[in-house]
Amino acid sequence: MMFLKAMDIINDLNFQPNFNLKVIMDFEEELGSPRLPKAVLDYKKELTSDMLVIFDGPRHLSNQPTLTYGARGIATISLEVFGPRTPLHSGNYGNYAPNPAVKLSQLLATMWQEDGRVAIPGWYDGVTISEEVKAILKQVPDDEEQIKKDFGIASTDNIGANFQEAIQYPALGILGLKAAWIGKETRTIIPATAIAEMNIRLVKETNGARMVKLLKDHIVNQGYYLVEEKPTEEERMTYNKIVRFNSEISYGAFRTDFDTEIGEWLRKGMRSAFGKDPIQIRTAGGSIPISPFVITLGLPAVAVPTVNPDNNQHSPNENIRLGNYIDGIKTIVAILMEKL
Amino acid sequence: MMFLKAMDIINDLNFQPNFNLKVIMDFEEELGSPRLPKAVLDYKKELTSDMLVIFDGPRHLSNQPTLTYGARGIATISLEVFGPRTPLHSGNYGNYAPNPAVKLSQLLATMWQEDGRVAIPGWYDGVTISEEVKAILKQVPDDEEQIKKDFGIASTDNIGANFQEAIQYPALGILGLKAAWIGKETRTIIPATAIAEMNIRLVKETNGARMVKLLKDHIVNQGYYLVEEKPTEEERMTYNKIVRFNSEISYGAFRTDFDTEIGEWLRKGMRSAFGKDPIQIRTAGGSIPISPFVITLGLPAVAVPTVNPDNNQHSPNENIRLGNYIDGIKTIVAILMEKL
Repeated sequence: MMFLKAMDIINDLNFQPNFNLKVIMDFEEELGSPRLPKAVLDYKKELTSDMLVIFDGPRHLSNQPTLTYGARGIATISLEVFGPRTPLHSGNYGNYAPNPAVKLSQLLATMWQEDGRVAIPGWYDGVTISEEVKAILKQVPDDEEQIKKDFGIASTDNIGANFQEAIQYPALGILGLKAAWIGKETRTIIPATAIAEMNIRLVKETNGARMVKLLKDHIVNQGYYLVEEKPTEEERMTYNKIVRFNSEISYGAFRTDFDTEIGEWLRKGMRSAFGKDPIQIRTAGGSIPISPFVITLGLPAVAVPTVNPDNNQHSPNENIRLGNYIDGIKTIVAILMEKL
Repeated sequence: MMFLKAMDIINDLNFQPNFNLKVIMDFEEELGSPRLPKAVLDYKKELTSDMLVIFDGPRHLSNQPTLTYGARGIATISLEVFGPRTPLHSGNYGNYAPNPAVKLSQLLATMWQEDGRVAIPGWYDGVTISEEVKAILKQVPDDEEQIKKDFGIASTDNIGANFQEAIQYPALGILGLKAAWIGKETRTIIPATAIAEMNIRLVKETNGARMVKLLKDHIVNQGYYLVEEKPTEEERMTYNKIVRFNSEISYGAFRTDFDTEIGEWLRKGMRSAFGKDPIQIRTAGGSIPISPFVITLGLPAVAVPTVNPDNNQHSPNENIRLGNYIDGIKTIVAILMEKL
């Protein structure tokens, strides 16, 4: 809507840019853009361009004008540990029939250290933060005490020296857990299965297939037999640790240098809109399905986030501030009216 | 319904027993009978009797006529580990904001060994199985290979040498788990909280208050700060491991000797109904709210279970076989027509 409104304004001003515009709208982004890589390949000729500007994601937490030069990629994993075929009475069979919620907890617990660092061997291999990169990251005006207050947390996971450093590394997270029933629906049973939904956030140095394999190998090393659907009766009677493992690598990470034609152009546009330099972020923690463009088309890409950082993205009460909506239109108009 | 039908039959036969009958119907048993202990105390005089027969629970797994001389007690615990105040985008903040599902998994994992034995110090203290008791337990004709096949499990938890021994010990179990969303509802977030519902199955040697305290102390020893409701903002900013801990001791275990007047009377009734000795079980794994009667009124109590063991108790598709319904009526008629 911001983009369409910006186009209306530019047309009303009868402005003639010195470049052509190709617009891509991805309506499957929240599904992991399953068909985008093939579409980029199929329409390679039509999509060929000099650079790619992405209007997605939230601004820096200070809600100041922001440019984001990279984003982590994403892979998702679904785990389901199997217990008895049906839920069993927890009194009649407690101490006898193995509890899959206990087993899932034990399995998940092996994946992290106490301090939140991933304990899977090789997880952080290949990622180093040089002094030069540290200097770039330090330019982001994060107020970490305020972040912790906003989130209501006393401490953070121990990855990197600060927030910007933390998101330069690949992450492993539990998105959801479920076994049987809770709260008023609690039943005194041994659950039949226990499920964990997980994601890996990839960085440029960590290949998605390799990271999924690290996780898979780790689970096998814990003594698990892996299935892709429900286990057969024979598998049930043969293996005492069975887990369903399904994974999907949605897309990899991307990262563009600050010192590029696209960087220079966008910084000029932002300065023209707001009279000051934007905050420049090396890598955003979240993922945008850009790597197909970057890899297949060889395009330099930079994101221009416009929405407020407290928008409860992907959660209940998702929202947009009207000020950000108006600033977003202003941002897009200023960039598109900047000469290349 | 079995009991009322049995009473009709006895009335039709114009039978005069040499004892008086007091009937107690507990409609809150599946809620943990929260008001029963007080009711027993309030109506102590009216409830005074010589013995207590309990028509509850499933027969032995072979579905043969069964007498059960004891049952485990039950306490329930609800745990909720707190993460960020609201769910956070798992990409933007993964590696930074602590994940409560990870923390809950790590906490739960400390409670059990790999083989299913509870790892909390002192958990099994006071419970020993003498050679005499072993002999009693061995009389129960369990077909453990068949049990495992029925449940679809390759192995069992490592408590006691067999099923009957396993349920002589206190159990700790996870009844349900939940954090955020799973399956098609999965969102790429860091959950705000993660919940585990648990129960302790008590035996005669293990006092409920002591066992709940063992669990609570264990959680404190893992570095957790305990709350009874949601943490305050100040608590959130002070402690990095916060868990809501709510517990309720529903009732203790009971156990009556085989060699008692009530045991003799019930065995005679069962022989008269079925022409053979019943299977005699020392302690059932499940719980029945009998300890208030046993403790407050000083009554010897024995359970006469009537329903089929594959009745999916407390789970979807709960059921009763018609053969068990008819056998149950027969059982009750035969016992009540036996002279004391």
